[in-house]
Amino acid sequence: MRASQLPLFTSKNDPNDAQVTSHRLLSRAGFIRKQGSGLYVYLPFGDMVHRKVEQIVREEMNRFGGVEVTLPVITPAELWQESGRWDLMGKEMMRMQDRHEVPYALGPTHEEAMTDLARSFLQSYKQLPVNLYQIGRKYRDEIRPRYGLIRCREFVMKDAYSFHTDDKSLDETYQKMRECYRAIFERCGLKTIPVEADSGNMGGSGSEEFMVASQIGEETLLLCSDEKCGYRSNQEKTAFFENPNTAAKGAVKANSEAAEDFDTGALKTIEEVSKLTGQNPRDFIKAVIYEDAQGIFVCFIQGDRELSEVKMKNLTGSTEYWLATEETIKTVTGAEPGYAGPVGLKHKDGDKIGKKTLRILFDKHLQGRTGLITGANKTNFHKKHVAEGRDFTISAGHDLIVAHAGDICPQCRKAELTETRGIEVGHIFKLGKKYTQAMNLTVLDPNGKPLVPTMGCYGIGIGRTVATAVEQNHDERGIIWNKALSPFTVYLVSLAKGDTETAFVDKLYKTLTGAGISVYLDDRDERAGVKFNDAELVGFPFIVTVGKKTMESGKLEVKLRRSGEKLELDEAELIGRLKAD
Amino acid sequence: MRASQLPLFTSKNDPNDAQVTSHRLLSRAGFIRKQGSGLYVYLPFGDMVHRKVEQIVREEMNRFGGVEVTLPVITPAELWQESGRWDLMGKEMMRMQDRHEVPYALGPTHEEAMTDLARSFLQSYKQLPVNLYQIGRKYRDEIRPRYGLIRCREFVMKDAYSFHTDDKSLDETYQKMRECYRAIFERCGLKTIPVEADSGNMGGSGSEEFMVASQIGEETLLLCSDEKCGYRSNQEKTAFFENPNTAAKGAVKANSEAAEDFDTGALKTIEEVSKLTGQNPRDFIKAVIYEDAQGIFVCFIQGDRELSEVKMKNLTGSTEYWLATEETIKTVTGAEPGYAGPVGLKHKDGDKIGKKTLRILFDKHLQGRTGLITGANKTNFHKKHVAEGRDFTISAGHDLIVAHAGDICPQCRKAELTETRGIEVGHIFKLGKKYTQAMNLTVLDPNGKPLVPTMGCYGIGIGRTVATAVEQNHDERGIIWNKALSPFTVYLVSLAKGDTETAFVDKLYKTLTGAGISVYLDDRDERAGVKFNDAELVGFPFIVTVGKKTMESGKLEVKLRRSGEKLELDEAELIGRLKAD
Repeated sequence: MRASQLPLFTSKNDPNDAQVTSHRLLSRAGFIRKQGSGLYVYLPFGDMVHRKVEQIVREEMNRFGGVEVTLPVITPAELWQESGRWDLMGKEMMRMQDRHEVPYALGPTHEEAMTDLARSFLQSYKQLPVNLYQIGRKYRDEIRPRYGLIRCREFVMKDAYSFHTDDKSLDETYQKMRECYRAIFERCGLKTIPVEADSGNMGGSGSEEFMVASQIGEETLLLCSDEKCGYRSNQEKTAFFENPNTAAKGAVKANSEAAEDFDTGALKTIEEVSKLTGQNPRDFIKAVIYEDAQGIFVCFIQGDRELSEVKMKNLTGSTEYWLATEETIKTVTGAEPGYAGPVGLKHKDGDKIGKKTLRILFDKHLQGRTGLITGANKTNFHKKHVAEGRDFTISAGHDLIVAHAGDICPQCRKAELTETRGIEVGHIFKLGKKYTQAMNLTVLDPNGKPLVPTMGCYGIGIGRTVATAVEQNHDERGIIWNKALSPFTVYLVSLAKGDTETAFVDKLYKTLTGAGISVYLDDRDERAGVKFNDAELVGFPFIVTVGKKTMESGKLEVKLRRSGEKLELDEAELIGRLKAD
Repeated sequence: MRASQLPLFTSKNDPNDAQVTSHRLLSRAGFIRKQGSGLYVYLPFGDMVHRKVEQIVREEMNRFGGVEVTLPVITPAELWQESGRWDLMGKEMMRMQDRHEVPYALGPTHEEAMTDLARSFLQSYKQLPVNLYQIGRKYRDEIRPRYGLIRCREFVMKDAYSFHTDDKSLDETYQKMRECYRAIFERCGLKTIPVEADSGNMGGSGSEEFMVASQIGEETLLLCSDEKCGYRSNQEKTAFFENPNTAAKGAVKANSEAAEDFDTGALKTIEEVSKLTGQNPRDFIKAVIYEDAQGIFVCFIQGDRELSEVKMKNLTGSTEYWLATEETIKTVTGAEPGYAGPVGLKHKDGDKIGKKTLRILFDKHLQGRTGLITGANKTNFHKKHVAEGRDFTISAGHDLIVAHAGDICPQCRKAELTETRGIEVGHIFKLGKKYTQAMNLTVLDPNGKPLVPTMGCYGIGIGRTVATAVEQNHDERGIIWNKALSPFTVYLVSLAKGDTETAFVDKLYKTLTGAGISVYLDDRDERAGVKFNDAELVGFPFIVTVGKKTMESGKLEVKLRRSGEKLELDEAELIGRLKAD
């Protein structure tokens, strides 16, 4: 292609709202342009890269047994109602009504639609396993769309959904998809970190995210510092194991003093009361109270740590929850907010408070602890010398704490965890029977009896893959594409003046394209500097310069975009080099 | 691909709502499946065909100078407000609001969005012409979605938008696109009829539709019976020229009798009054009254013909109109509905009636006519002996009548028109400056002065192209694909039993695919009859059968799907044949 046919859309200015490199470079290099909040136009080069990623995903999915289909983007609400998610998905799901006021979702994901498709043709266990996928548009009404293609509201995903007679078959496909994803990201030139992940409101038992390490990542990853162990997990999901060194520091000597209320006045926070008493926050009991439409959740953890909302949510099954109101806190504790504790609570776990059911959840690290300070459920008072097993009892201890760097690895139970930030580009789930059961999908088993298949699902964000490829591959002059994703292999800078030189460049262009090499010929009427800058900015792997000098010497100036290495090659050498790389 | 990897989705039953062949066959052959009103899943074969059409369109668009981009499907309402179409598009445009109650359209078309993109980078006349296109999803909330892929609510379109400094440049691109469309439809194996078309609410001066002749077409085409003339037009657009033979039959002798009311009692229709009086309906004046939010439109035409709503709409600029209410008719005529006529109307053209402006429109064929019968604007009365120029005057006669077969060709003005029905698969428009002006897109001309570019736009329905290919290419046994669109070139029916025969079939499969031929191997454990039926139903160009007999004879049974011709070929002959076709 020539610039005179396929124009460049490069720009000298960064977009106003560009906070991250990929957003800035993809915009300046003319690959994308914003058309609304979280809505992006793919310009020609961007469109080409996006389609190349799609094609890599398609080829690898097919190689690993995927069957491609395309579902409608708008999904009838009745399918979401069958699974129960119509009410659960919240504002992130974009919704609309047709002219007859029939409601639809702009699918943020397609479990329901794909299960509906599967039940229309699955009859026998002989048809399983099957792994149906599509590459299509998705919509998520992000509260704060940002980072260009990394967090936008309309984007293309590959989403696959597999159906199985049993967990063994599901696991086989799940492992295949892990392999498939590794192959995809490798071809895209992306280094990814697979981590254990929370399944969120997708249901199911196991899930793994493919993360691109990045300072701008919105996810925190915890990695075992012992590479032999190799544990890697999303912070959301990481089980908390306290570091014995930390634990030792906070330990209170066992004592037999009776629990006793003491006046702390207006001091409410653990920090304040710790200062007052000189007792380490670790030996406090922190209370955090949430509620949702059905329940009130009182959570107790040790005072130096944060409650994990994700863990609370997974234990309670709550999806739309909020911090308890002052009124609720007063009803539960009998005191103003700030004085909740496990001793002398008026209500027990399972009690009805109004229409809501009370749940009292303890973190297991509080088991067997003594000498603790906690709220006294009495305004202005805390309680000290509190001992578990005497003053209150934990019948079931849970994992409720957010793990972080410095904690012990939940896998090897020896080494400490380290922390890094990441962007999710892929996610694989074992969904189980959540959707097949709710939507009544059955097949006949070998004995002719109905069997509910178990499901997996597997997503890759196409646009996000493009963006993270740029995050990982760029320098101060622009993007650096690998050959597999680059719109063209060669950026041919023409310095030709006059007909003879132009004819020479044209001939070279035709020779290269005739040899099956994809070439972008910058034949614009621009200064050499402008062309060189644009060539570096758009980032094709080879920059070849031709002009009068080339005609005379017979040597082409070749610059490798990634290394910056400069070569002088004749035509045949260049073609050989381009085909080899 | 093997059936064991890529399953068939064939079915023995037609969908309940299948009224047309393409819907029936694409469903039965397992190419598509309905997921909601006007919403279709593309199953694997359907998806492959759809992508092949997309790729043909992409290649031809690129060859004819198109520049591919991808716009967001959801378009901010503010862009539609700029052009003024937010209020005009009516219920066919699907709309939604995001979490901040900001309104968006699910783009039924992208003039506004593409003009917005264009103004973000167009600065100089040197950048023109440019022809930007995309292949993406469109939404139209059809009142009555039907005919499978032919009239659905979510579908993929190629839509291109060109920008030009002047009409000459626009016309050049317009002619290129005509050529491009011919090339596209030819590669798809589709016979299309280009016809003159109405521009609808797209604005602009010229437009042409590419029609596939079909009994189920929702459009009526009028063709000149003289092939040398070659006039072809959408009925909506065809100018009406009365056939002198028809005119002669209805002619009333000129007379000088004065116009006179006569009592017709409850008889209101032209048919009834014609029976009563014995006068030919052609010599009646038919009144049809419409209104919209701003105006009332009283239209008079000769009594034997139908009023063209499209022509009325184009004359009045109305977009959302309806037949006038009883109340409006009474106000305008002073009589019950059924007695409207041009003589003695209380209001004149241009009068304000309430907030609405009255327009009185006459068809030009009423000019100079005498002896007419019309309503008397008096309940129970008609008026006879009415003469134009004496009893009422037509200052400007319009073309208001729906043309049909038997009328005179508006181009040669000699031959009669014939009629056929068609499905629109492509449409090209000269839009003019409607959008560039409204959205304030300017470039600098050679003198450094701002210039408003003129636009063209060019659409092709991808799914509709797939469906009409089936409408034109099928028989009682199933679909007949051409090689360019077929998911695979060969349907290989394996009749292998036991390991030796299976190995033989596998070897053949590998030889063929190794030779670059796309083969679908039906290796299912099914009866031969089932496989043959499915092979015919899905319609790949070559059906090759292999089994024990083949092993013994060395000859493959080859059936050409289209002609039904049967050949016996050895492997080398088959490969030769497949590559040649």
